[in-house]
This record gives sequence, C-alpha cells and structure tokens, in this order.
Amino acid sequence: MTIFVDMDEVIADAYMAHIDIYNQEFNANLQLKDCFGKEAWQCVPVEHQQSIKLHTHRVGFFKDLKVIPDSQEVLRELSQKHEVFIASAAMEFPQSLREKSDWLDEFFPFIPWQKRILCGDKFILKGDLLIDDRSKNLKNFDGRTIMFTSPHNTNTTDFERADTWKDIADKLL
Amino acid sequence: MTIFVDMDEVIADAYMAHIDIYNQEFNANLQLKDCFGKEAWQCVPVEHQQSIKLHTHRVGFFKDLKVIPDSQEVLRELSQKHEVFIASAAMEFPQSLREKSDWLDEFFPFIPWQKRILCGDKFILKGDLLIDDRSKNLKNFDGRTIMFTSPHNTNTTDFERADTWKDIADKLL
Repeated sequence: MTIFVDMDEVIADAYMAHIDIYNQEFNANLQLKDCFGKEAWQCVPVEHQQSIKLHTHRVGFFKDLKVIPDSQEVLRELSQKHEVFIASAAMEFPQSLREKSDWLDEFFPFIPWQKRILCGDKFILKGDLLIDDRSKNLKNFDGRTIMFTSPHNTNTTDFERADTWKDIADKLL
Repeated sequence: MTIFVDMDEVIADAYMAHIDIYNQEFNANLQLKDCFGKEAWQCVPVEHQQSIKLHTHRVGFFKDLKVIPDSQEVLRELSQKHEVFIASAAMEFPQSLREKSDWLDEFFPFIPWQKRILCGDKFILKGDLLIDDRSKNLKNFDGRTIMFTSPHNTNTTDFERADTWKDIADKLL
C-alpha cells in the first residue's frame, strides 16, 4: 500500500506553534479549546490577525515545530509494512523547504529522501491512502482518505477521521 | 492534460554545468561530443571522478544553471492549454531545494508554487505525460512518456524521444 502523510497538523504541530508565538508576543492567553472550528488567526482580535498569518513566512518557524504525539512510532511501524511518503504542500513557503528536509532528517530519519515530497496541489499524488488535515487535499485524492483532527477542521464531517496517531495505528496496524 | 516536466537536463542544463566547472577547475578541455552515452563523471580520468560527483552538493550549483533552449517559450504556451507541473527529484540534495524554487521564480514565473513538486521517487505522480531524461523515472510512470535527450541517455531506445523543446512543441502544440 502506498500511503501519503501530510506534515503540518499531522506529524508537525504548527497550530500549537501559532498559539505559543502569539501568546508570547502579545502577552495573551489563547488556548487550544478556544480554537475549535477556526484557523488560528481567526481566534484573535482583527488587529492581531495579520501577525499570525505571517508566522509561516518566518525563518525558523517550521524548523522548531514539535512532533505530533506517537507519529514517530506509528509511522516507523507503518513504513516497515507499506510505502510511506511524506507529502507537504510546502512550495508556498520557499524558506520552509530546507527546514522541512532538516526536520524530517531529525525526527523521521527512517523516511528517506526518496519518500519525501514537497509540492503544491496534491491531486497529482497516485497511491492508496492520504492522511491530511485539509479538505481541499483530501477531496481530490483518488483513494482512501483520513482527515487528521486539527482545531481548524473539527466541524468537518465529510471524511473518515483520526483524532490521534493511536487511532491511525488502530485502523492500519 | 496533466503534464510533468523534470528540471535537470530538461529545462535546466546541469550536464553542461558539470563540464564547465570541470574544465575550469582542472584546466581541461572536455567537450559535449565526448560524453554521449555517459554520465559526466564517466568522461574524466578516475582520479577526477569524485570531484564531478560532488558538484551537485555545492551551494549555488543549481541556482546558476542555464535554461535549456526554448523551454521557457514552449512551456509557457503548454501551460496555457494544460496543467503543467515541474517535478524534480530534488530531495536528495537539501541545499538545492531553495535554489530550485528561486530558479523557477526567475525563469519560469508562470508556473506557480501550486504546480511545483520537489520529490524523490516519481512513480507516485498521477497524470498523463512525463517528460524526463532518466529511464528510472520514465519506466514507472503510468501514462505517456517522453525521454528528453541528454548526453547520458543517447544510447537508450526504450522511449519516445525529444531532442529539443522544438520537438516537444511539434508533438504537443
């Protein structure tokens, strides 16, 4: 089986990074539970939204992301049984490309360069399963799709869902 | 139609860059006509081969590549009629990722980030046509394949071939 796994919000915790940076720089107390159904920038006052939107353009943003719990263990096991690719729509952020490669070297060294994809539109991926947090990616994929839960997608009901990597393990291992 | 176009040896002249760098640094006179059927490193004395193999790891190598003649004009026209993606197996060279993104910004600005793919194995691409210089990429693609002529592949007879971008225009426009 060929499996594609997204990075941000699936194995790399970009959402929590948005909250942490915002709280620190605006001396605020935004919490994850305030964010269900919304993008991070939609959870703050209008005059602060542009600041959050620019996080992804900062040098170091993607390099410093925390790993989503259990993703390493489950992906290591999955990659022994299946063709596991990481597929990230990273081309929007040129400064992120090297950071994402280095981040994968550090946290997912068992996924070699042959199985890493930095792309834009994901409808060009040919395989059996896509695990992603974005409807726009999942809806155009020819194969099984699993929406990985992130605060911004909690109201979406269109896809099979996994809330955690333990859920993924239950489904696939 | 969804078309994937490789970068090195198809729109970016990596082979000539190998020759130019080698001739300059070894005060040599290697010429393209000496290279048919061989990789660039196979055209020089054994004691020089490692130097050529390391070119692709140098900072700036991919940024400075010349554009393959007529590729801009033909791809601009193709991209008005088809979904044209650039697909480069760049993940092997992390330092190349940003350079390739910047190079595309400079020479192929009409191909937006949504249609750029930096990957490893290309058998995961789903589309109608792959234009590439490497048998290993072409042979695993589900769709029409065109081998773009490069010195290293002149002896291969397994694929439909284009020697120039004018050939591509004749076939597709």
